[in-house]
Parts: sequence; C-alpha cells; structure tokens
Amino acid sequence: MSDNSFGKLFSFTSFGESHGAGIGCIVDGVPPRLPISEAVIQPYLDRRKPGQSRFVTQRREDDEIEILSGVFEGMTTGTPVAMLIRNKDQRSKDYGEIARQFRPGHADFTYQGKYGIRDYRGGGRSSARETAVRVAAGAIADQMLQTVLGEGYRVHGGVVQIGPHAIDRSRLDWNETANNPFFCPDPVAAAEWEAYLDGVRKDGSSAGAILEIVADGIPAGLGQPIYGKLDSDLAAAMMTINAVKGIEIGGGFGLAAMDGREAGDEMRAGPDGPEFLNNNNGGVLGGISTGQQLVVRIAIKPTSSILTPRRSVDLDGADVDVVTKGRHDPCVGIRGVPVAEAMMAITLADAVMRHKAQCGLF
Amino acid sequence: MSDNSFGKLFSFTSFGESHGAGIGCIVDGVPPRLPISEAVIQPYLDRRKPGQSRFVTQRREDDEIEILSGVFEGMTTGTPVAMLIRNKDQRSKDYGEIARQFRPGHADFTYQGKYGIRDYRGGGRSSARETAVRVAAGAIADQMLQTVLGEGYRVHGGVVQIGPHAIDRSRLDWNETANNPFFCPDPVAAAEWEAYLDGVRKDGSSAGAILEIVADGIPAGLGQPIYGKLDSDLAAAMMTINAVKGIEIGGGFGLAAMDGREAGDEMRAGPDGPEFLNNNNGGVLGGISTGQQLVVRIAIKPTSSILTPRRSVDLDGADVDVVTKGRHDPCVGIRGVPVAEAMMAITLADAVMRHKAQCGLF
Amino acid sequence: MSDNSFGKLFSFTSFGESHGAGIGCIVDGVPPRLPISEAVIQPYLDRRKPGQSRFVTQRREDDEIEILSGVFEGMTTGTPVAMLIRNKDQRSKDYGEIARQFRPGHADFTYQGKYGIRDYRGGGRSSARETAVRVAAGAIADQMLQTVLGEGYRVHGGVVQIGPHAIDRSRLDWNETANNPFFCPDPVAAAEWEAYLDGVRKDGSSAGAILEIVADGIPAGLGQPIYGKLDSDLAAAMMTINAVKGIEIGGGFGLAAMDGREAGDEMRAGPDGPEFLNNNNGGVLGGISTGQQLVVRIAIKPTSSILTPRRSVDLDGADVDVVTKGRHDPCVGIRGVPVAEAMMAITLADAVMRHKAQCGLF
Amino acid sequence: MSDNSFGKLFSFTSFGESHGAGIGCIVDGVPPRLPISEAVIQPYLDRRKPGQSRFVTQRREDDEIEILSGVFEGMTTGTPVAMLIRNKDQRSKDYGEIARQFRPGHADFTYQGKYGIRDYRGGGRSSARETAVRVAAGAIADQMLQTVLGEGYRVHGGVVQIGPHAIDRSRLDWNETANNPFFCPDPVAAAEWEAYLDGVRKDGSSAGAILEIVADGIPAGLGQPIYGKLDSDLAAAMMTINAVKGIEIGGGFGLAAMDGREAGDEMRAGPDGPEFLNNNNGGVLGGISTGQQLVVRIAIKPTSSILTPRRSVDLDGADVDVVTKGRHDPCVGIRGVPVAEAMMAITLADAVMRHKAQCGLF
Repeated sequence: MSDNSFGKLFSFTSFGESHGAGIGCIVDGVPPRLPISEAVIQPYLDRRKPGQSRFVTQRREDDEIEILSGVFEGMTTGTPVAMLIRNKDQRSKDYGEIARQFRPGHADFTYQGKYGIRDYRGGGRSSARETAVRVAAGAIADQMLQTVLGEGYRVHGGVVQIGPHAIDRSRLDWNETANNPFFCPDPVAAAEWEAYLDGVRKDGSSAGAILEIVADGIPAGLGQPIYGKLDSDLAAAMMTINAVKGIEIGGGFGLAAMDGREAGDEMRAGPDGPEFLNNNNGGVLGGISTGQQLVVRIAIKPTSSILTPRRSVDLDGADVDVVTKGRHDPCVGIRGVPVAEAMMAITLADAVMRHKAQCGLF
Repeated sequence: MSDNSFGKLFSFTSFGESHGAGIGCIVDGVPPRLPISEAVIQPYLDRRKPGQSRFVTQRREDDEIEILSGVFEGMTTGTPVAMLIRNKDQRSKDYGEIARQFRPGHADFTYQGKYGIRDYRGGGRSSARETAVRVAAGAIADQMLQTVLGEGYRVHGGVVQIGPHAIDRSRLDWNETANNPFFCPDPVAAAEWEAYLDGVRKDGSSAGAILEIVADGIPAGLGQPIYGKLDSDLAAAMMTINAVKGIEIGGGFGLAAMDGREAGDEMRAGPDGPEFLNNNNGGVLGGISTGQQLVVRIAIKPTSSILTPRRSVDLDGADVDVVTKGRHDPCVGIRGVPVAEAMMAITLADAVMRHKAQCGLF
Repeated sequence: MSDNSFGKLFSFTSFGESHGAGIGCIVDGVPPRLPISEAVIQPYLDRRKPGQSRFVTQRREDDEIEILSGVFEGMTTGTPVAMLIRNKDQRSKDYGEIARQFRPGHADFTYQGKYGIRDYRGGGRSSARETAVRVAAGAIADQMLQTVLGEGYRVHGGVVQIGPHAIDRSRLDWNETANNPFFCPDPVAAAEWEAYLDGVRKDGSSAGAILEIVADGIPAGLGQPIYGKLDSDLAAAMMTINAVKGIEIGGGFGLAAMDGREAGDEMRAGPDGPEFLNNNNGGVLGGISTGQQLVVRIAIKPTSSILTPRRSVDLDGADVDVVTKGRHDPCVGIRGVPVAEAMMAITLADAVMRHKAQCGLF
Repeated sequence: MSDNSFGKLFSFTSFGESHGAGIGCIVDGVPPRLPISEAVIQPYLDRRKPGQSRFVTQRREDDEIEILSGVFEGMTTGTPVAMLIRNKDQRSKDYGEIARQFRPGHADFTYQGKYGIRDYRGGGRSSARETAVRVAAGAIADQMLQTVLGEGYRVHGGVVQIGPHAIDRSRLDWNETANNPFFCPDPVAAAEWEAYLDGVRKDGSSAGAILEIVADGIPAGLGQPIYGKLDSDLAAAMMTINAVKGIEIGGGFGLAAMDGREAGDEMRAGPDGPEFLNNNNGGVLGGISTGQQLVVRIAIKPTSSILTPRRSVDLDGADVDVVTKGRHDPCVGIRGVPVAEAMMAITLADAVMRHKAQCGLF
C-alpha cells in the first residue's frame, strides 16, 4: 500500500535519496528457487551506469548492488529480496544556493511545498538516481519471466527520437541498440545524433527523447480488466520514471487521425492459430495481451539541469537566476532505456502472477 | 485490492456487463456530511447519455441511477455509496454470429483467451457501457472537491481533434464546449467536424479523437512520489478508459523535440507568490501538483464497430468476415469527455485525501 | 483498497445499511467457469436466516439474493460478481428515541463521534444485517474451494459454548450441528442450552457464545509470511464480525499455561508422509498451513439489545435510560456460525490464489 | 501490497533472515518534519535486546540500527525511512542436522513445504529476529502519535501470565513493569515467576505467556468499518507476531460467559462529556475507538526450542529426534512485550491517518 511501492503480487518498494546513505529496494512476491545473485543483477545495472559515453553524465557511481535477504545459496527462497546500493562520497559539502533555490523543471518547488522540508542535495528523493534500484528489481522480474515464459520472451527497447530527430523506421533493427551510445535501433540516425547532441551541449542546453520499449514472447491473456488493464499498469509504470511526460501503446496518438477501417487489427487463420494482420493496438485489446509484440513509447522531456541561467525564485519567494553546474546528462532519455525496460519487466511479472492466480487454478 | 477498483482512499469498485441485469459501483472513502442524491448525480450522467446528437449512438439508455446505500437524509454518512443502473431491454434475443466471432479491435478475442468464456452480448464487461458508473462515481468526487477546494476548482475538458482535424488553439475557449455536440472548445472547428463526421459515417467507417482534460484551482502539493505520482495515477486512470491508446501531460510528446532552454517552466515572484512563466509540465513536477492548471491529453482510437466488413476468425479459428450492425458512435471520443473528466475528478479526490493523511496531521 | 473490502486476490466489497434500499457486495477475483447461480448461493443464506427457531430473532427477512453481474449462462466469467439483497419494508416510520439515544454496547456512539452523522435506523451500517452478504460471498468461495481442493475439503463449525455452558468435547460430533437449533456439535449440551436460553430471554437478558470453525482437507503451504500469515488473515476476518471480541487458533489461550514439552506438535513418519501427533497449533505453523485440520475459535459477546433498561446518554449528552424493544437474537452467536464459516472460506480462497500466484508458476 | 508489509497509510515492509546479511524495513507514509534519528529509535530496540536478564536468551545481538533514508538533518522528509540492522557473526558454520530436520513447533516444515527451499540457519525468515525491525518501525509510529495526540497518549503493556501463573489484578500497577525482568505489572507475581521460570529451564522445557497491551489517550473515532475495524487491524497485527495463538479485546473470551445485563458498557453524563461506567469492550465499539483505554491481550505459546528431545521427521520423511541446543528464551512472551507495543503503535498511527483522510477534510 506504500506510495513508494509498485506492483500488486510481484512488487517492489524503493527507498533512498541521491546523497543519503544509500538507495535500495525490497522486492516481494518473488517465486522461490529462482537463481539470483549479485552477479546476475549487476549487468543490468551496468547498462544504466553513468560515464559510458560522452553523451551521458560523467559522474562516478559504481552502483554496486548488495543483496541483503531473500536469497540462500544462490536461489530465491520466496521471502523478500532486499537490495542496497551505498552512495559513495557523501562528504558534507557546501550546497550553497541549491539549498534555497528552486531549479526550474525540477521537483524542488513541489517537494518544498508539499512537505515543508526537502533533502536538497542532488535532488534528494526526486533524483533519477532512484531509478537504479528499479533496474535491480527489473533484473529479478526479467529472470523470472525468462523462466516462466521461456525462449521467445524478451523485453528490450531503445531511443527512437532525440530532440526533433527521429529514426527512419525502415532501418529499424533492434540488434543495433548495442552498437551505439544511444540504444538506437537505427545506425544511421545514431551517427547523426552524435553531432546533434554535441551541439546541444555546447549551447548549454539539453534534448528530449522518445523511447520505444517492446516485449516479445508475451502470451495472450495477461492483464486484468477493468482497472488492472495491462496498458493501464504500463502507463502508470512508465509515468513514474523521471522526466516522462507521455506514453502511448501501439499506434498511440497517431491512431486518432487514422481511418476506422485501417485502425482495427484484422485477423486471419494461420498455421499455428489466429494471426493478426497488423499491430495498431500494440499487443493489447481491452487491457489484455493479444499475444503480439507489446509496443510502448514514452516521451521524455529535455534535461532540466542546464548550464544556461534560468529565471526562478528562492525559499523567500525572491527572484533568482539559477545556473545548474555539474556533470548532467545532455539527454536523460538515453539512460532511461534500461529503466523503462525494467518497469516493463516488473509490470509483466506482476501480470503473469495475477493471471495465474485467477485463471490458472483449475 | 480488486482489479475492478480504482483509487486508494477515495476508491470505487465497478461491476456489470452491457446486457446483464445492470451496472453499478461502490464508492468508498467518501467523507461524511456531503450533500449527495440522485438529483445531484444524474446531470453528470446525462452529459454522457446516448442520443444527444446524430454524432453519437442512437441507442436508448436512460442511465437512471439509484443510490443503494451510504446516503441518509440527503447526506453521505461515511459508509460506502453503492449505485445501480438497471439495464433496460435485456430480452433474450438471437446474438447469432457475435457469440462465435471475434470483432476486430474489440476485446472479444482477448477475453475468450484469458477466461475461456465471455459474455458476448454487446461486448459484455468490455463494453464502454461500464463507463457510466465512473461518471456517477466522478460526480461524487467532483462534489467533494468543490467542497474541499472551493470556488476556483473545476475539472472540465473537450475534444481537441477528431480524425486528422485539430482545433486552432488560438480560438480555444472552454466555454464553447457546451455549445456544440462535440464538447469542442473551438466553435469553428466544431462546425467543420459536422461535415467530416457525416462523411465518415456514410463511408461506413469511424474516427479517432484527442481529448484534453484540465483542472483549475488545484493547490500545489497533491501527488505522492515515487509510485503514487499524480501524473502516474492520471495516466493509469485515463488508460483504463475504453479505446484510449495514449496519454500526455502538459507538453507531452511535443516536449521531446523542444530545446532544453524552452522546456523547463521558469518562475518569477508575483504579487501573490511565485508564478510560473509557462506550463510545459502541465501542472506537475516530480509527480506533485505545482498549483498551475493541470493539463492532460488522451488519444482515442477510431470506433472498432463499423459497417464495413472486416476480416477475422471465429471460435474455431476459421476465417470469417465480420460486419458490426447496430447504432454505434462514429467517434467514441465525444462521449469519452465526461468519462475522462470523471476519472480526473476521482484521481484528484484520492490525491487530496492521501495528501491530507500524511501532510495534514500537525 | 477500500475499508469495506476483504481479501487480496479473492476479494469482496460490501455495502448497505440495515434499513436502506438494500445490502450487497461485489466479489472480485473469482476464477472463470465456476458454476454459480442464485440457486447455488441461496442455501448458504438460508442457514443464517432469521426465524428458524425460537432462539433467534423472529424478524422477517427473506434475504433473497440477486446476482447482478459476472455470471453468464450459469458460469462465472472472471468479471466481478455483484449481488444484491433488497431490504423489505422500509416504510418510513417513527424511530423516535433511537435517533437521539446511544444504545449501550452498540456502535451508535462511535459512529456518531467518528462521522458526525449516522443512519440510526436499525443500527444502519453497523447492523449485523451486513453479514448476509458475507455469506453470499462465502458461498462463492466455498464453491471455488470445492473445485480446487476436491473431495476432502470442508469448512464447517458450530457453537461450543453458550453463556457459561460449554460442550463436553468427548461428545463432539460435527454431524450433530444440523440436528439442533444451535449448530451445536454436542447433542446433550444442545438440549441443556434450550432451557438456559429460555431463562435468559425471560430475564430480559442475553447470552454470549464461543464458536469453533474448522476446515478439513486444507493442503500444507497456504498463508503468506510475515504479514499475510494465514492465522493473521483469519484473525482479521473473524474480528470484523459483529460482537466478536476474541479469536484463538488451535490451543489458543490455553497454550499459555501448557508445558513446552507438550505444546509443540511432534511428528512421525506415516504411511502417506509425515504425520503430526497433535494439533495444538490448529493447523498453522509460522503462518502457513500444516495440512492438519484448521481450528479457529471466536468469542462473541452477549447481544447488546436487551429488554432490561440500560443507562446511557443522548445526542445532547444528557442521561437517558434505553430500552431496546423488538425481536432480537437472545444469543447472536448462533446465527454467527454461517457468517464465521463464510469468512473462513473467503480467507482460504484468497490464500489459495496467493499461494498459486507465487509458488505455482514453475 | 506486499505480504511482508503492514499498514495502509502508515506502512512498513520488512526484510531479512536470522543469519543473512541483515534485517531491516522501509517505513512509508511518515509525516514530514518529525524529529527522528538513530538516537530516538535505539532505546525502543534496547528494551527488546537479548541478554538483559537470565530469563531471556543470552545471545549477543547489538541490534544497532542505521537509518538509510527519509531523514534529513534530524527530521523526516516525508519520503520512505529505510532502516538496517546488520547481522553480526555470520561466519559460515556447520548447521548439520538443522538443515535436514524439522523442529517441532517451528515453521521449518511449512516453509519447506510451501517454497521447496528454506534458509534453515536460525530459522531464517521465520525467526523472531525479524521482530526487531518492527520495534524500530513502532518507534517512529510512537513518536508520531506523541506529536499528534499529545500528552495523555501512551502505548504500553506487560506480561500478565507466565505458564499457569497469572497476576493478581488487584495489584496491577503499570509503573511496575520497569522494575522486574518480566515487564510484569504485579511485583508479587514477578517475584514468584523467577523461581517458576528457573524450574522450567532446569527441566529443559519452556513456558507460555499472556500479554496485555494498552493504549491511553486515544481519541474516539479511530477505526474504519467494516473491514478496517480498529480491533480487526489489531488482531491481524498481533497475530503476525511469532508464537501468538490468540488475541482478545477488553473482556474477550470472558465475555462469552457474562450476562447480557453486565456485558454492555453503560454510560452517564460526566463533567467533560459522556462517561463509560465500564470497559468490557476494551475501548472499541463497532470497530471504532470509544475514547476509553484500548485493551488487548495476546496468548503466546511456550518456546518451541527446548533441550528435551522431541520426535520429528527429516527432509526424507524419516523419523528423527530433535534436540534444540543453543541459548533460547525460556519464555518468548517476555521479549514479546516491546514487539506487541510496536505493533499497536503502528496500527494506531495508521488508524489516525486513515481517519484524518476521510473525516478531517472539511
């Protein structure tokens, strides 16, 4: 029931601030006898780690995960899996103006207004640092789904637009995401983005992005109508990620302009059962998976922390000009890919368990 | 905990199928001593009622609401408010092919796959008929918010695009939504849409839409980070509405292409406290309301039930061509407006209570 | 999440007041393709019905159940099952003093204090009339458990003490509960209780009771540690029943005085696997079922509505003497048996689903 | 939603095994600006610490708490408070037979049956060691209640029976609980228990206990009918504590034998409003607090780990005789007092927030 929890049966609860003692989470509902260890989880975290290219933040965070419970001799026991990432380098230092100023586009103003207090160091709880623990939780979800759904299952994704520059979908190849610093499925676009992002950074600005996350090998039948629809849960999941301002399933906003005769996905008998002739619905009908590829896109706003001075106010309500120094991601969307993948895996793991509970009894 | 419930403190649980005995809901968490009666709720339902213009379905549904509990002498008592709308005209009739065929774009295929059984009459549980009870629940939420937030509060919205035809935002006037059959805030666009929709219908097709729902008079501080963010809850709420395939907050997908220097909403001291110079974030930062107008847009796909024959399969997996007869909405987005307003009111009522519980104690 | 809901996966939400339009509930999470109809549920309600002997209230309530949703052609569809019992005879009448007086032992005072308003007619929401819908929900749970657990499964129980008169456990025979008006498993005690209760009633007083509810054929492994323990869920379930003031599992309070060498249930290999030599733990160890008989006892206080005048105060805080007229149960514990059975069945159905979700995946 | 969570608004989620890396919890919903630090919490933990007298286990556990998040400059921030207690001395050692044997009265058999795997070291997750983190969470709840409810508020309790030896209630003085090793409110009984418990230990056996936990200064109106009743939540809370087999409110099981004319608590006008003439209902009517002292009693079974050999089976189902060595509490009820106090404080903190959310809005 916690506001810091996500998921109903496969659930996790996160804690921690950017510059506190550490961040972590408790993953509950994990099936027993699943092989899990730090070695299994760490690679997922490494994909999100800062400093992997010049297009992401150069901060040093090792994000080394420690499993505190729920695993015994390399296997889950069915009890909650707690994980901890210690924050390095929390030396007390002068945070100066940041303690009193509200950075535009950040949650400084709203946290202060809501709680009357905030841990201003590095954004505190509202920092995207929290997303590291989602990736750890997502790793367990992904491992579970591999076990339950088998070979064909895979959650993956990438960046399909940076700033105004979208990929050419005729070149879309998901295998390309490992070959460039943007998780971009179009190698030509990826090459172009390098120059674009270098320019953005030189201008003291930042860029937004659109991410596409897909799941293969998802059986039909997942999702609980009416208020536990798979797409509703996915929308909630994605919208909790920092800087996300939009989400669409399948054709999404484009469907609004489509002719009704084109929009619905027709079917025909195929050699292995019914086949859809199209996937405008992104693999979900009536909140339940169709067995097709699950397709979700999310819009991420430009990084709010930029070198260009911005107008704002301080704790006393007086005008100030805020300059955010430090080593920020010019486009937070890039490192958002493993986070969004994690949220999709968690949502699916939960959906699998909820479906099994109701429909797998007899 | 029910999959047919929405909301954490102000919550409702819905039941009912399109052609069963009736539809209804239980609204729980309603504060005591709120003036509520059928007369208060019915006008909300009437805005969603079929047959109000030639652009919506001509089915006869009175949608007459009966309050079964939780109200005593015209006031809520703090106990659950149950409401019932009896379905008229449930005479057993020949449903013929619909019992065995999967209508493209509908949930027929997925319900059958998930449950191994489905009430095929009129779409059963997956019918948009269920949304009537959300409007009833939303009416109570709206009344509560009027009491708690006072004068300036208002949730309202309209259709800002039908098919490929968007409004001209320079003409946007929310007072216009009452003056045309589309809840359209641009009178010029509304006039043009008439001819467009007539054409769509004559073609045996249907149109999608984009809706914009806004809330005025919302105080800063609503929303619970990290997994109870106001925008995450709104995304979940909207995505549960039939035919919705996308949701965005404020600038939404447009923010992805915006320059970082323009995207963040700057602030300056104003006569009554800090003022935002823009609202790209749609009234939410870090999942918490800023005190600005709350702005949500949703994408609705074209009505799946159209007169043009569509390719599909039946229960045996054999190819069939489906023709959906009957009196369907050429654009379900229109009647979606009161439903989306209701879901926003419910989400806000819940957020108000959750905020009060944690931050209003001392 | 509603405070008027019980259960996590197999859940129900109840509504209704004693003298309002009706009472009812929504049962959610019901597996699809379970044979359910009014005819299946009504016999459960009839066991709780008033007027079956001179030892229970003589009020006329037919408690005729109507299924509003979730059942199609005699089978559940996986969608929420809503049920309604209309209240008969709600003619407006003079409730006179009851509207202003707080009946001792009742919830009049606390509801008024909490909500500042109450539906005083017949106790409103706090009336035991609400328990009828639990029996209806329990009927569905019981049917589901019969399907899932098979032949040996049975939830049943009875009254093992009325006032100070306990049964003789050497005579305990659960088959006897159908043969007397007390659901008493000891025919000799049942005969003695008749005279005792007649005397209580003549004195204008009432009697308390202890109920024992057991479940047979429960597999080992149900229950979710640490805060979803089977016995914790059972305790919560039972304590929601009107007039219940205590609950114990297995040896219960008697275990406090037992020697540690006797208390733990030893085991030995048996022909069909490990066998317990005793059941002091009532079929639960560490919150998880052992596979033995599940044994729960609950204490029910004497009916608060008695003919003898009681001292109290009214809405203005002035002293009054309250005499409760009407046809009240001299011992509410008797009709509590089917209610407690229902709550156990619901708790078990939920436990089965939660166990399956986590431990039945691979 | 986690099975390892307790509470709806003021909630905590626990993790950890007896001999794993550590135990801990995340407390969520904590109001902001509450003064909290390790120094505030540690004294609560010290009351539960082993080794304080010869009547509790002599194990060395410092139970030193570390706050990982949610506190900034000595004040809560409204974000989740994570706490960690590292387990000392986890050197790998030979657990020998315990890995393969099921200790009678323990959860070894049920965990193995449920999950097919268990962390057998010291009982793993089912060890009472987990209760240390409840005490830490309870400390925060207690601090919050002190702030919200003010001076008169106090949750406290003690042991009122050990083995068959109950206190003399005419001598009950809650201030005495600090003066003896049993948290006993009757100094004469405490003196007698010393000899009794010494004997029990010499016999290689153990003793059960009855605890009474009370709350003073609780306002009327807390508790949410019907399925969030204060006494139902308390019953659930207490029944999650290791070795608890019974719970009663106020008169509890004794009420079953009481005359109806005595059982109901009559009222009379007093100088400061209505006064109850008795408290048979233990401060709860209809699931809502009356404003009287809240009175809960729980039954705790004798420690299952005793030196006397017990009959059992092993993983292969073969007969074994189990002797539990080590330094176990001869009566686990004693150290259960601070745990039960913590669970009551947590339940009350949650009830306060739930009440405020619904009834404190306007």
